[in-house]
Amino acid sequence: MLKHNYLNNTDIEAARAEYISLISGRGFHCSTESVPTQKANGRILSRAVYARICSPHYNASAMDGIAVRASDTYGASETDPIVLKKGQYDVVDTGDPIPACRDSVIMVEDITERADGTVTILSAVHPWQNVRQVGEDICMGDMIAPSETRVTPALCGAFLAGGVTSVEVKKIPLVGIIPTGDEIVSPVSNPAEGEIIEFNSTVFSSMLSQWDAESLIYPIVKDKKELLRAAVEKACEECDAVLVLAGSSAGRDDYTSAIIAELGEVMFHGLAVKPGKPAVLGAVNNVPVIGVPGYPVSGIVIMDEIVRSIVSCWYSSEVRDYCCVKARLGKRVVSSLKYKELIRVTLGKTDSGYVAVPLGRGAGVITSFTKADGILTVPQNSEGFEAGDEVEIRLLREKSQIDGALVITGSHDPLIDEAADIIAGSENSFRVSSSHVGSMGAVTALRNGQAHLGFIHLLDTVSGEYNKSYVEKYFPDGGVRLVKGVGRIQGIMVRKGNPLGIKEFGDITKGRYVNRQLGSGTRILCDYLIEKNGIDKAEIEGYRNEEFTHTAVAALIAAGNADCGLGIYSAAKMYGLDFVELCVEEYDVLIDEKYYATEKVQSFLDTLKGEKMKERLEMMGGYTLE
Amino acid sequence: MLKHNYLNNTDIEAARAEYISLISGRGFHCSTESVPTQKANGRILSRAVYARICSPHYNASAMDGIAVRASDTYGASETDPIVLKKGQYDVVDTGDPIPACRDSVIMVEDITERADGTVTILSAVHPWQNVRQVGEDICMGDMIAPSETRVTPALCGAFLAGGVTSVEVKKIPLVGIIPTGDEIVSPVSNPAEGEIIEFNSTVFSSMLSQWDAESLIYPIVKDKKELLRAAVEKACEECDAVLVLAGSSAGRDDYTSAIIAELGEVMFHGLAVKPGKPAVLGAVNNVPVIGVPGYPVSGIVIMDEIVRSIVSCWYSSEVRDYCCVKARLGKRVVSSLKYKELIRVTLGKTDSGYVAVPLGRGAGVITSFTKADGILTVPQNSEGFEAGDEVEIRLLREKSQIDGALVITGSHDPLIDEAADIIAGSENSFRVSSSHVGSMGAVTALRNGQAHLGFIHLLDTVSGEYNKSYVEKYFPDGGVRLVKGVGRIQGIMVRKGNPLGIKEFGDITKGRYVNRQLGSGTRILCDYLIEKNGIDKAEIEGYRNEEFTHTAVAALIAAGNADCGLGIYSAAKMYGLDFVELCVEEYDVLIDEKYYATEKVQSFLDTLKGEKMKERLEMMGGYTLE
Repeated sequence: MLKHNYLNNTDIEAARAEYISLISGRGFHCSTESVPTQKANGRILSRAVYARICSPHYNASAMDGIAVRASDTYGASETDPIVLKKGQYDVVDTGDPIPACRDSVIMVEDITERADGTVTILSAVHPWQNVRQVGEDICMGDMIAPSETRVTPALCGAFLAGGVTSVEVKKIPLVGIIPTGDEIVSPVSNPAEGEIIEFNSTVFSSMLSQWDAESLIYPIVKDKKELLRAAVEKACEECDAVLVLAGSSAGRDDYTSAIIAELGEVMFHGLAVKPGKPAVLGAVNNVPVIGVPGYPVSGIVIMDEIVRSIVSCWYSSEVRDYCCVKARLGKRVVSSLKYKELIRVTLGKTDSGYVAVPLGRGAGVITSFTKADGILTVPQNSEGFEAGDEVEIRLLREKSQIDGALVITGSHDPLIDEAADIIAGSENSFRVSSSHVGSMGAVTALRNGQAHLGFIHLLDTVSGEYNKSYVEKYFPDGGVRLVKGVGRIQGIMVRKGNPLGIKEFGDITKGRYVNRQLGSGTRILCDYLIEKNGIDKAEIEGYRNEEFTHTAVAALIAAGNADCGLGIYSAAKMYGLDFVELCVEEYDVLIDEKYYATEKVQSFLDTLKGEKMKERLEMMGGYTLE
Repeated sequence: MLKHNYLNNTDIEAARAEYISLISGRGFHCSTESVPTQKANGRILSRAVYARICSPHYNASAMDGIAVRASDTYGASETDPIVLKKGQYDVVDTGDPIPACRDSVIMVEDITERADGTVTILSAVHPWQNVRQVGEDICMGDMIAPSETRVTPALCGAFLAGGVTSVEVKKIPLVGIIPTGDEIVSPVSNPAEGEIIEFNSTVFSSMLSQWDAESLIYPIVKDKKELLRAAVEKACEECDAVLVLAGSSAGRDDYTSAIIAELGEVMFHGLAVKPGKPAVLGAVNNVPVIGVPGYPVSGIVIMDEIVRSIVSCWYSSEVRDYCCVKARLGKRVVSSLKYKELIRVTLGKTDSGYVAVPLGRGAGVITSFTKADGILTVPQNSEGFEAGDEVEIRLLREKSQIDGALVITGSHDPLIDEAADIIAGSENSFRVSSSHVGSMGAVTALRNGQAHLGFIHLLDTVSGEYNKSYVEKYFPDGGVRLVKGVGRIQGIMVRKGNPLGIKEFGDITKGRYVNRQLGSGTRILCDYLIEKNGIDKAEIEGYRNEEFTHTAVAALIAAGNADCGLGIYSAAKMYGLDFVELCVEEYDVLIDEKYYATEKVQSFLDTLKGEKMKERLEMMGGYTLE
């Protein structure tokens, strides 16, 4: 019943280099095809293109005017004009051929026509003046572009001008994608319990298209060895490379490695990279077959670290370097010596340079990729980095997008996302980059110059006031500005119908609680209320179960993983939970004084005060505006 | 017969700003459409995307193992294992739902199974350990991405994970392209005299696709006003914007402006830009209609300066800045105060930084765009720049491509292109950037540190030796290395059958001559032979008709524009010309000593000596190898 095999742990750089050399040795390489020049833009030439004809291929008038023999015009001037008779000139438009008996053109602006058909000219032309002579642009036989050139729009034009109506280009590789698994289903909006939405094929196919590869997504294959074997065989016949999604590990239903070994050869199984370890690198004849881990983040890493190189190998091109920036690390990162780890980070740019803040490291958290601005690599022989270390970050977005963002770090509320959306759609739009690190995280980030602003809701448990005393304590010399935000209704979210009859904070011990992370304003409120109510923390089941957002707490209560938790009204409303109101807290904006007057900060504050924001807050519920 | 109207000369920045504001005011703006998430990669969201379900949407095992109740495991250790009976656990694979009576998972590696169906565990788990709880990745209701986001592969995955199977995106604009002209024909490889190959529609359509616009190319419309009017009307009904190619000037057959005025409104006709002046900016209802000049270079400029902004206006996005570099200008550029001029340049990078060398400025020379690395802008109120001035160059290629190129400046020979092609296809490929400025151009460029190497064939008219004395004269302190290249047969190219009976250099006065540019080795040879033969230059018809390459000279003789010209055997052979051999010249490589030992220069020299090069030279003919 419980079979288990161990994976190898091969250094990923070494494995990749050897693997690419192996498949290359087996003849994995692009074939070529001929495409019409009109469709060649963006393709890579497999051989040099030479002009078949000259351009122009005849002597063409470069102007609207009259074609003449230059020698007939010699001596003409304003004081001594020359009159050309019929038969001494031909009317030509731009592009018209120059008759054999002429060799130059006089512009229409420079002549005077008379009723008798003669024309008067006021200046001479020299031979071939105002004529596009044969070959002016392109000469027959000239190389227009060498092999390996990526065709540009202008090159398409030059090829056609040179009489080249089709070009030989590198074939685009077709990569077969086989999703596998008993539990996975094609994308739906309402999966049943136990059904996992299959989205990796879409992600990987989209990545492949960015690397100039096409993909063919096969139907989902159930975890039956013979079915998967047949699917892999078929794909190897139809495609240039094959990806088998999931089943690449060493579990009970993990057949990928065994099937590749049967049909061909497994070169590597298990790479020293996190996430991404359970990858299989193999080949069936000269078709690379890759077992890509099923966890989306692991899968993306293997796509990027391995499959991208396979596509480059196909094209015999260098793997493109990513852009990198140097950044200060916003918090400590600990990693194992056993593997290279790739950590998604957000990047914010302030006057102190770039700050990288690590995101969730779970292999299943695809949003760590959608929120990420870059990747921090912790090498295999490193235990990690300290907060404040200078590290190199590989960019996942364009630098200009990161540089131009307003950096918000601190307590999370959906209203920040709504403000970002309103700003994105406005005329002078900019990106809002927000990290959710809790109210105390905002204080720390601003003290270190790592954010432009942050939201806080910090209760002074002595005075009962919000925020002010914290600002005085942590910024004794000023340097920040506290701006009134919104009033936000905090309370206890409980399951629908409040089955445990929770009426006040003291009742949280009646069920399983779900907590917020240390440093968050809601956690501070929670701990204050625990002390005020004289509750023993050990009595609270689930006190150590920490989540990072209001919706995460609400989701767990709605799912039955917990019975109650502190949070804001809008989250309870969204999940159809009952809500026991406790207080209205002051959710304010703490702004680094340096940036207060900047356009972005002012525009953000204007957005918060604006009509659109008001409408959205009213729809969400649980906010009071002043 | 010869109608002529004058164009306006409106400042292009002002015209663009006003035009964009006008069409925007008329409601030119993207509509939106819903697309399946699987096809959304690269599209721009027109509204924020919120998760419809949590991901995971049920509590899922994060491991292969057994699902247990955490409280049943408390106290287990290696010395004090706990035995779980049947009914106390369920076997689960990664992704399986956790049964309602369990709350955690023990990894398969950490358990021992017994024959009686019990399992022994050696350590405890806490609630929700090894479980992906509901919402771990995405919480229902969370904003996954704000509006205006360009969808990435990872976002496609996150949307699908959040139950979002389709997204609302900005519609891609459809731009109609109407080629016009009596003389133009669809691409063929053998156009008749007077037929001009219509390639602008391909160039512009390829440019549009790079800006996220689709295009519909209409059949070619003859220069008949009623036909063009009908075509424009139809396109305005079917497309979001319309380009009318050629006919935008003020000549006899230039109807574009009049037709737009009849159907709608012409806002601008004639812009102060070179090339590109005869553009028409108009609109029919809320459909922008642009008259794009027929000369390809002018057309590309108007596409880039105007049409790109129209596409950005559609998307309400900023027009993307191009990357720029600072460069020294390789030679003087004179421009008029009347317009802004955009000059194509090649860029080379040496230790002295970037050098920009202007290319041909003709509006009809599309190869000036295919060879160009960047664009130099001469503002409307400037007369140009001096050689050596620091100028800003807008890049047309990626910077890495320019930075990594071997910079060859000097005499041209097709063998340089062949070498570049061989290198492009080799394992350690790099780009070769070559400018054709003649042998003396190579000397100047190397003296100024503006090239890595150059080819020269400079005859010392006193000693009869090639190259050596020039190197001694121009590089008295050394700093360069002269490397033997090839022997190249020079002679007089004459029309097939040699109708004028040209037997020796003195016979060139028998017909029309075509010369090479000053500073080229062939011109030096020509002038030497003129003097040696005691010929009066004034006797040579066409002496001032200068071309820049051997093939250009050959093409003109083949076309009958000239009767003879000096050049190399391979060019005469290619054009089927007769050839009167004069001498074998030494076509050598002059290399800046600083770069001699670099990998690129050595690889280039190896290529020259290689078998592939030998084969190609033999096929071309007229070279002697040592």
